[in-house]
Amino acid sequence: MLRVPFADVVSALTAALAGLGFDSDRAARCARLFAETTCDGVYSHGIERVPRFLAMIRNGSVDPGAAPVCVQQLAAIERWNGRRGPGNLNAWASMARAVELSAEHGIGCVALANTNHWMRGGTYGWQAADAGVIGLCWTNTLANLPPWGASVPALGNNPLIVAVPRPAGHVILDMAMSQFSYGALTAYRQRGAMLPVDGGFDAAGNLTRDPAAIEASQRPLPIGYWKGSGLAMMLDLLAALLSGGLATHQFPADPLRETGLSQVFLAISLARLQPAEDSARMADAIVASVLAANPAAVRYPGEQILKTRAENLRLGLPVREELWEELLRA
Amino acid sequence: MLRVPFADVVSALTAALAGLGFDSDRAARCARLFAETTCDGVYSHGIERVPRFLAMIRNGSVDPGAAPVCVQQLAAIERWNGRRGPGNLNAWASMARAVELSAEHGIGCVALANTNHWMRGGTYGWQAADAGVIGLCWTNTLANLPPWGASVPALGNNPLIVAVPRPAGHVILDMAMSQFSYGALTAYRQRGAMLPVDGGFDAAGNLTRDPAAIEASQRPLPIGYWKGSGLAMMLDLLAALLSGGLATHQFPADPLRETGLSQVFLAISLARLQPAEDSARMADAIVASVLAANPAAVRYPGEQILKTRAENLRLGLPVREELWEELLRA
Repeated sequence: MLRVPFADVVSALTAALAGLGFDSDRAARCARLFAETTCDGVYSHGIERVPRFLAMIRNGSVDPGAAPVCVQQLAAIERWNGRRGPGNLNAWASMARAVELSAEHGIGCVALANTNHWMRGGTYGWQAADAGVIGLCWTNTLANLPPWGASVPALGNNPLIVAVPRPAGHVILDMAMSQFSYGALTAYRQRGAMLPVDGGFDAAGNLTRDPAAIEASQRPLPIGYWKGSGLAMMLDLLAALLSGGLATHQFPADPLRETGLSQVFLAISLARLQPAEDSARMADAIVASVLAANPAAVRYPGEQILKTRAENLRLGLPVREELWEELLRA
Repeated sequence: MLRVPFADVVSALTAALAGLGFDSDRAARCARLFAETTCDGVYSHGIERVPRFLAMIRNGSVDPGAAPVCVQQLAAIERWNGRRGPGNLNAWASMARAVELSAEHGIGCVALANTNHWMRGGTYGWQAADAGVIGLCWTNTLANLPPWGASVPALGNNPLIVAVPRPAGHVILDMAMSQFSYGALTAYRQRGAMLPVDGGFDAAGNLTRDPAAIEASQRPLPIGYWKGSGLAMMLDLLAALLSGGLATHQFPADPLRETGLSQVFLAISLARLQPAEDSARMADAIVASVLAANPAAVRYPGEQILKTRAENLRLGLPVREELWEELLRA
């Protein structure tokens, strides 16, 4: 594993993208979002995803030159068409617009149709929190999760992000509706480990901690069994209805053709409701009260990211040697 | 078990409440909300909760005469003070106001501080959906759930409700952040049954399906383990910060003194975004696609409620004989 300085990763990616129909600003932003995701330790959705992203540009699923356009305005809500542009650029623009709307209306909602995979959803939570506002966002995905009571996929794992700004460290929850992603299952299997808790069903329909059995059955478990199954369905309903876009059942099963996604971005202004120091004091007290239940083991959502980010900025981003060569050639 | 006509339950409850400081309109509304919850089959939070509700009026935790007041307006967001009035009346008024705000701004948010237990959270989801809007709401609670990594409670089970209107049957998710409520654990134990999936930890710290072991350890499981633990914390942060009210760590451990709760009500207008028939068609297609994964076993959130409601309206509400006598005497 190489350790490559953050700026070098951004430069290499920017150069690779600039040759593919991105203008220079968009290439730099897109590259930075990929690099930041790796820097924050979400390796599955950072630069490791660039080869697939490039393949989806080549197969026409992602249009690198397409920027989102507003198609409907209704005071604090807007609908945007992502025009199948790069998912991370579309999502970034959408949360930025939701933040603007929240400054005017107290709360702002951008519903984005016809977009692409946003890579790490937490990115847009950090974006909102860095802007000092509460952020919520979610996306639908292709069907990769059986509903509770079924053994074939009909739900997306539809990640949900909730972000609360805090000077001592934003509190950012970034969670998919499956207990473990396929990426996580693969990682456990490759190191020969069992999952820490049940992660799905085996071929015989029994709950199992064996990652290989779940990869084979394609039956990962929704969080909370019937509860996460229900929430995944609600997130798809909200994303499609609010954006006027496509729902999970309308996407092909091929991840390389997963395009036209629907997403929702909510921003809520705290700054005009109460002084920033009151918000910080309240959030600090809540975080402290939860950590106090067992300071050695309890973490707040987002806590680990700050540590990983600091380490990766200091040591350089961990990059597989073959991936780095591939990116330099791209 | 008696079967009492819906109208008779409402009349008896209205009479009981009218003697306790409710004006007649508020007594009738409060009674109806309790009766509707029982009618919908959520027996733990319907008229079975009235004795505890009356006890909390008597001990001063609930002020029956107090109506909520608006304390801050910021375009599409308002903060209200529930003045420790009846939780279901406060919540009903708050969702009604959020719906009004959504008509004006596209989206409306009411953050309610200083309120009481709202009984069944799903009530306010049905309220929003019946008004033709998308509704989301959540509440904090006293600490009744250990965070992931700890063995003592420091999180509330903070129910989250998401409601999507649909002519063929609203889709309404009403879920707490614990896999099973204490009421559910008791019900399983009393009929000598094991839980269908792990519901918490036993005294030795092992995951268990034994409801009695979890009642003894007071270690119910958050949905999705670390994920539900994180989401419970976010809901508390959002409720307290947006309302300016109290957080889970500030409530006493005694359920009879659990007052001053914080809640959030969001309503989003669909009607002005697209024709109602488009929304219905899209929602129907999503519901159908999920049920198709296994029509015999998969249900959409809220589906069972409509069946139970119809049956209880036809047969009368199931009421324990002793409870009915107690309500008639109250």
